Amino acid sequence: MSPERTASAPAGAGAGAGAVAYLDHAASAPLRPEVAEAMAPYGNGRFGNPSGSHQVARAARRALDEARQQVADFLGTEPGEVVFTSGGTEADNLAVLGPLAAQARLGRPAAAVVCSAVEHPAVLEAARWAARPLPGASAPELCLLPVDAGGVVLLEALDDLLGPGVGVVSVMLANNEVGSIQPLAMVADAVRRRAPGAVLHTDAVQAAPFVDLSVAAAPADLISISAHKLGGPTGVGALGVRHGTALAPLLHGGGQERELRSGTQDVAGIVGLAAACSAVAAGREAEGVRVAGLRDRLAAGLASLPGVRRTAAGAAVLPGHCHVLVAGVDREELVLLLDGAGVCASAGSACASGALEASHVLAAMGVTADEARGALRFSVGWTSTDADVDQALSATAAAVGRLRG
Amino acid sequence: MSPERTASAPAGAGAGAGAVAYLDHAASAPLRPEVAEAMAPYGNGRFGNPSGSHQVARAARRALDEARQQVADFLGTEPGEVVFTSGGTEADNLAVLGPLAAQARLGRPAAAVVCSAVEHPAVLEAARWAARPLPGASAPELCLLPVDAGGVVLLEALDDLLGPGVGVVSVMLANNEVGSIQPLAMVADAVRRRAPGAVLHTDAVQAAPFVDLSVAAAPADLISISAHKLGGPTGVGALGVRHGTALAPLLHGGGQERELRSGTQDVAGIVGLAAACSAVAAGREAEGVRVAGLRDRLAAGLASLPGVRRTAAGAAVLPGHCHVLVAGVDREELVLLLDGAGVCASAGSACASGALEASHVLAAMGVTADEARGALRFSVGWTSTDADVDQALSATAAAVGRLRG
Repeated sequence: MSPERTASAPAGAGAGAGAVAYLDHAASAPLRPEVAEAMAPYGNGRFGNPSGSHQVARAARRALDEARQQVADFLGTEPGEVVFTSGGTEADNLAVLGPLAAQARLGRPAAAVVCSAVEHPAVLEAARWAARPLPGASAPELCLLPVDAGGVVLLEALDDLLGPGVGVVSVMLANNEVGSIQPLAMVADAVRRRAPGAVLHTDAVQAAPFVDLSVAAAPADLISISAHKLGGPTGVGALGVRHGTALAPLLHGGGQERELRSGTQDVAGIVGLAAACSAVAAGREAEGVRVAGLRDRLAAGLASLPGVRRTAAGAAVLPGHCHVLVAGVDREELVLLLDGAGVCASAGSACASGALEASHVLAAMGVTADEARGALRFSVGWTSTDADVDQALSATAAAVGRLRG
Repeated sequence: MSPERTASAPAGAGAGAGAVAYLDHAASAPLRPEVAEAMAPYGNGRFGNPSGSHQVARAARRALDEARQQVADFLGTEPGEVVFTSGGTEADNLAVLGPLAAQARLGRPAAAVVCSAVEHPAVLEAARWAARPLPGASAPELCLLPVDAGGVVLLEALDDLLGPGVGVVSVMLANNEVGSIQPLAMVADAVRRRAPGAVLHTDAVQAAPFVDLSVAAAPADLISISAHKLGGPTGVGALGVRHGTALAPLLHGGGQERELRSGTQDVAGIVGLAAACSAVAAGREAEGVRVAGLRDRLAAGLASLPGVRRTAAGAAVLPGHCHVLVAGVDREELVLLLDGAGVCASAGSACASGALEASHVLAAMGVTADEARGALRFSVGWTSTDADVDQALSATAAAVGRLRG
């Protein structure tokens, strides 16, 4: 374990537990030191409601304006197109429900919402909610866009689902469980051609640590990000909203975020989000290569264990994701044994952990319920080192041996 | 200016600007040192998505569970009745829109929503949104409960507005602009008698720093609080939801907050909210007396200036609020002159600052538009000292003289 890793490893992971290999960056990434530094003045000394007129409020407003410019640069939008939210979930909900509400209020209620079958629950459950008709009223139909064995959306199926009644299309930039990258530019082409009135949203929460959104998310009208997946704080995110996108707010009140989101802005958190965006953007290319190298070594080592199969083989996958199916073991037992050996991994997405149902993502990819029993996700990120990979490989070999014992 | 005050005064208020008398606690209170201390381990060292299975996630989960107990004690609810939100605005929106959506889905759509005329915009705008009918559909009617000259709801008018079709009644525990305390127990009696199916919400955001909610908010089904008004961080709040209250979520997804609110919990922020609640509860009685003493001296000094009238005279008012009407001056010009003299005050609520319209609160109290031009709010809180009051009094006298000159 390198000294740098000691400095950045999670301190609360249990006293005297030995080295911790934190390989669950896709659930939550440790706070970057430059983010903590940027936030410090706003946590303790400076504060203030940015909507006031006095000097304390103006200092908060200036910090907010600077942060908005940094996040806009990261998203590839104008500052006036950034809406700060309480995280990825609120951004996703606003992106799905906001256009539908605006369309309904304009007298053009959507007949359908199209989501990929592998969207995050924040998108899928928001769309399911919108699709539940009230007694005596109509609601849009939810159409799930199928994916191939690699978790990538089927473009030919998309063509069939699109039409003039589609209000929202939501296709994530990359998947949170298996890491598959979606062909967003081709999705956008199809949407503009066959459903020109539809709003196109992309959940870029998982892609954001590695992919240049100013290019990759350029075809989308709405772009969601979350700070804590970037090494920023929890409880803050943003939705990029291109000018001209009809969107109704979810949270009403003071109208702080250009009438699209109300609530006193969390200046410290927003400054942290902006600092995380800037840190990611500055180191993106080199860090992508470094993380992919660690991940590839981890994946190769896991694949050499008997009965271990890499998920989403053949698809383009984010540099940090390493998702495998381990035959003959139970995923929750495996994660607990790994935890005992100081290795933090996940049995799926963090949201679905503890849930007994099989992952909707794996099911959509054609993974059987039996195979999905042994699902294991490692996600490499900015704190990860060669020592983490070594620890994960030896711990996994030992745990699998014991469970199959 | 006392040494303690130096330690807690806002550092970002402008270098070399001299002593700052921060008297805008109702907009945002400076972070308490014990809150910063409680949050520190979660900002930098510990982190983790509390929904995972490994040790880092479990440490986050333990912190969340402890914080939930502290906040429940503060609200006078069970831990299982606390829903963490991104702040007071989200809590208020969930409290108004959540019951209406649940009632509609159950096939019993509300015919009316009753709100006091002096509610925070987060309540009023959420209710207005709910009351805007979709084309071809019906929507509940929004009924505003009038107030007297002190800003206190008229109970006889409430009786007339209540009936079996009322879905939600929202009456704040104390007003954010003028500080008037509402007779919630009597409101609750009327609701239980005449609209037994209605959900009663109280926005306790402003009352929480001074009023024991386990007593005062006991009659409400739903109770909103916000951390940054308590000396906690921005971007976090809570809604107390009594068991048996039908509530639909606003944010859908992983279902983290008992299916009533989705999104990875902001553990650091929630720990900060809990620490602020505990600090307030521990010092409540003595602090209420201390703050009221400062406020009374401020109010008496202001009232001795010619053409200054105290608002909400005769009503029971929170200890920290000092709202006056200054004849013959413009409120925004006054706040800017005060700011130049190092005194932070507000021309209304922070949300309405900068807005040109007159305050809906003052209008409901029968204050004329001309009188409201000179509205000025000081709000005293935990950092406030005698020196702040002296500075505010001399700066106000000078500013009023100059503006009238």
